[in-house]
Amino acid sequence: MVSLKEMGERELIRGIRNIIRQPPGLGPGDDSAIIPSFTGDVVACVDSVTFERHFPKGMSFHEFGWLAAAVNISDLASMGAEPIGLLAALTMPADLDAVSLYDIMAGMDSCARSFGAYIYGGDTKFGYGTVSCTALGTMGGRPPMLRSGAKRGDIIAVTGSLGSAAAEFYARENNISNMPQPSSLTMPTPRVKEGIALSSSGAVTSCIDLSDGLAEGARGICSASRVGMDIFFDFLPEGVGVEKVSAETDITKEEMMLYWGGEYELLFTFDKDRKDLLYENDIDFSIIGKVTSDYVPFIVNKNTRKAMDNGKY
Amino acid sequence: MVSLKEMGERELIRGIRNIIRQPPGLGPGDDSAIIPSFTGDVVACVDSVTFERHFPKGMSFHEFGWLAAAVNISDLASMGAEPIGLLAALTMPADLDAVSLYDIMAGMDSCARSFGAYIYGGDTKFGYGTVSCTALGTMGGRPPMLRSGAKRGDIIAVTGSLGSAAAEFYARENNISNMPQPSSLTMPTPRVKEGIALSSSGAVTSCIDLSDGLAEGARGICSASRVGMDIFFDFLPEGVGVEKVSAETDITKEEMMLYWGGEYELLFTFDKDRKDLLYENDIDFSIIGKVTSDYVPFIVNKNTRKAMDNGKY
Repeated sequence: MVSLKEMGERELIRGIRNIIRQPPGLGPGDDSAIIPSFTGDVVACVDSVTFERHFPKGMSFHEFGWLAAAVNISDLASMGAEPIGLLAALTMPADLDAVSLYDIMAGMDSCARSFGAYIYGGDTKFGYGTVSCTALGTMGGRPPMLRSGAKRGDIIAVTGSLGSAAAEFYARENNISNMPQPSSLTMPTPRVKEGIALSSSGAVTSCIDLSDGLAEGARGICSASRVGMDIFFDFLPEGVGVEKVSAETDITKEEMMLYWGGEYELLFTFDKDRKDLLYENDIDFSIIGKVTSDYVPFIVNKNTRKAMDNGKY
Repeated sequence: MVSLKEMGERELIRGIRNIIRQPPGLGPGDDSAIIPSFTGDVVACVDSVTFERHFPKGMSFHEFGWLAAAVNISDLASMGAEPIGLLAALTMPADLDAVSLYDIMAGMDSCARSFGAYIYGGDTKFGYGTVSCTALGTMGGRPPMLRSGAKRGDIIAVTGSLGSAAAEFYARENNISNMPQPSSLTMPTPRVKEGIALSSSGAVTSCIDLSDGLAEGARGICSASRVGMDIFFDFLPEGVGVEKVSAETDITKEEMMLYWGGEYELLFTFDKDRKDLLYENDIDFSIIGKVTSDYVPFIVNKNTRKAMDNGKY
């Protein structure tokens, strides 16, 4: 085992360059990278993951690297963008095993590769364990999907299912075994294909990813679009493991499906008269509610209707 | 005084959005930003500055923010790129005064503005004090300047002068007053104009910025170009304050001008038969040496010639 401090910067960079694939254009090694021959809108985002907040029990460094890339690729996906390149700024403890850092980079590269993107550059400093990943993508001529744009009467829908990441997290915390797999907790799959199809469809009026959970995502759209939402709990697509964890602990399905960050599904609204365009684009989704003229999202469960606000907001 | 923790994320983001200028396209507020209508090569880099390493005595938060932007704009400048946008990932102590964070963002925005660029997005998490800034730029059709490309017989040159940042740093450490100003220590000026002119000239064979000092920059070009260098100490343009600090302390001029990071000048090599192209492009520079067929840079001082290696490499 060799720590980062013992290894030295040059050797470390050489190691990283051997692990990640060489991108088209100019990758790591000069003062800047070059992504060649770009045309159109550049879509860009940055988000950090930290050892303290985003490294649950049982996660590997490879998975942590995947997550660092995935959270940002998901932010591209929610605009309808196609990922092209990542840049990674790491601050890592000086006594960290260099192999752990290589595992993080391999995980990032692996996630990037899954979506046709490359790691174009980065920086490593000593400090608290953090990966700040910048993701760059292209709209390919499509209009970007924004949080604003939802209109009263639009239909609310979500890709995939909700709560499996939360269920896996609580299963690990509570030593519940035999959980259904795969879970989206440690290696979530950003909805890139779905985002591209949604932005191509011409039906979508707003979109956001659920990295902060359904309630927070719904509030994001309501706030930017100045609308309200009625979301019907019975309509929500339940993720694997949610049933099991709610049966074996006192954690409610509502907690897992509405208020838990770390989902990477897309929440979107669409013009109800254009629904056919979504089916024509071969997109799998679940309808979960409708846009109203209130100013906050409500969750409707049996005979109760309450604002989606767990006191944190 | 309100700490980041007390303030809450939404209010903090609202505050930041009020401080920075709204960019063309789509700025902060959605899952991703959009830099509109890009054509050609995207130039991209990321570099982090930390409270621990990059916050010398007497520096303000505004200056720290300026520095975070400047180190990256300098990395664009060394390729010959024109800055367009920045993304800022901050990890900040939860007990930091929110006003300090606003000062950092104002400093970044101020630096971006000086070079015609905008802050397009960001992220704030709690943690150790770090700003990881991603800078994006355009080549505008010019060929990028790389570290590789220097040839034996090329001339070595540098923009501006060397050592004033080091001199100011040591002056503060040693309580030397009446230092000449302005110093490049706290608000360095990236050589964007010079980089664009150099890459336009058609004479330059390699380039690097001096953020890690002249010796390290020279080694970077030598390593990538597989050449050596003879750099003549007497040719080096001496920055303000170097004389004063070397007279009043035991810190040598060599230490300040060769081995101190935090310079933001450009070191470049050019084809000796094309020197006129540099003068035609109205570029101020000092010739400091010539490219050799050795594999490391040497510093020639009076009758001594030694490898530029202070034992750190």
